[in-house]
Amino acid sequence: MTIAYPRRQRQLESLVRKLGLPEVTQIKWQLLDLALTHPTVSESANYEQLEFVGDAVVRLVAANVLWDNYPDCSVGDFAAIRSVLVSDRVLAQLAQEYGLELYLLISSSAGADKAGQESRLADAFEAVLGALYLSTHNLELIRPWLDPHFKQLAAEIRLDPARLNYKAALQEWTQAHFKVLPEYRVVESSQVPHNQERFIAEVWLHDQKLGQGKGRSIKAAEQAAAKVAFFALNSQEKP
Amino acid sequence: MTIAYPRRQRQLESLVRKLGLPEVTQIKWQLLDLALTHPTVSESANYEQLEFVGDAVVRLVAANVLWDNYPDCSVGDFAAIRSVLVSDRVLAQLAQEYGLELYLLISSSAGADKAGQESRLADAFEAVLGALYLSTHNLELIRPWLDPHFKQLAAEIRLDPARLNYKAALQEWTQAHFKVLPEYRVVESSQVPHNQERFIAEVWLHDQKLGQGKGRSIKAAEQAAAKVAFFALNSQEKP
Repeated sequence: MTIAYPRRQRQLESLVRKLGLPEVTQIKWQLLDLALTHPTVSESANYEQLEFVGDAVVRLVAANVLWDNYPDCSVGDFAAIRSVLVSDRVLAQLAQEYGLELYLLISSSAGADKAGQESRLADAFEAVLGALYLSTHNLELIRPWLDPHFKQLAAEIRLDPARLNYKAALQEWTQAHFKVLPEYRVVESSQVPHNQERFIAEVWLHDQKLGQGKGRSIKAAEQAAAKVAFFALNSQEKP
Repeated sequence: MTIAYPRRQRQLESLVRKLGLPEVTQIKWQLLDLALTHPTVSESANYEQLEFVGDAVVRLVAANVLWDNYPDCSVGDFAAIRSVLVSDRVLAQLAQEYGLELYLLISSSAGADKAGQESRLADAFEAVLGALYLSTHNLELIRPWLDPHFKQLAAEIRLDPARLNYKAALQEWTQAHFKVLPEYRVVESSQVPHNQERFIAEVWLHDQKLGQGKGRSIKAAEQAAAKVAFFALNSQEKP
């Protein structure tokens, strides 16, 4: 069933063509319309709930791609790679490739907020995945076009592990393995600005210290500690 | 295709009957066998990767159940309820209802570790979901028996919000909304043991303080702070 506004319907059909989907008859257009409606346009009928569903969809698609392509990878590597695949940065890039911003209904003031653009695009992208999943209750409308992107990105990330965000990777790993989050404890060892050792961060899991790192900002020190911890955990895993 | 050990095959068929699945011909028995093999039995061929896939499956099923049954719920409530549905405690209970422990291949020393039983059962349960999903690449073998459990649990949780773990709920919420985790800062205000105000925890998101709480342990203080923050965020959301 199409939606009541012919112009919007044509817009959405154009997006679906860009995704290369043949089985357009299965699409629930009302859901796709909702997925591309920002909360500033409607407080109650917007993409938030679909984004919640889509977040789970994108994690499952990423897991499936890793399962299919890297049967010998450790779960730690799975978790690290997936944390990049499902990051706002990657999802917003994919959204941009399909020109999602063109289809997003949003108030003009919110649309002008460039700082929020990345997370907005990532959110809308997840919501579109939610709408496509709920159209068929399976991944038929998603995997044919999303799998190749994730497959290529996963290969790139494996070649260049510097792309990994170790805090996110460590978090994925400890969530997957222990269902808990690592905790960071940071102290300021010097008050000299730009000192590379200004902050010292420790990362802990339960009562065990996993690693320590230094940096000129709290964030940098935490990233350094997470990197140490991530490699320590993964080398334990593969003796 | 069945597996090479007739006794194990019969075991797995018995589990599948308990799940009430009619379409057993679709099941990839090798995957189900792997899902019920603990890392202490095989370092390389165990349930870890399937658990990684299954973790995404269970989150999607939970999201779908909430979408189907609570169209008027806020995303904050979705996140809070799902954090309970996918918790080790709930997944281990479901595993026990189906007697999963009977089918789990595990070293006798690891099997005797009662403290680890809950997370072990939850892990194996997720791995079974991973195996069933990868058997068909959709949720046909899962939703018919898992949806009713989640539907009933979600209804119970809504009636009794005290079941919510507010730290987990807040984490789900901030992840869903902002893709970041809340940070806790704890100070010890008194060294008297059992003092209800011994620890004071603050919870922060980006540079904003969301709430504060007190407790006799760090955990209790953090839970109290998370509860304040969770309600503050959710009341903002529904003006």
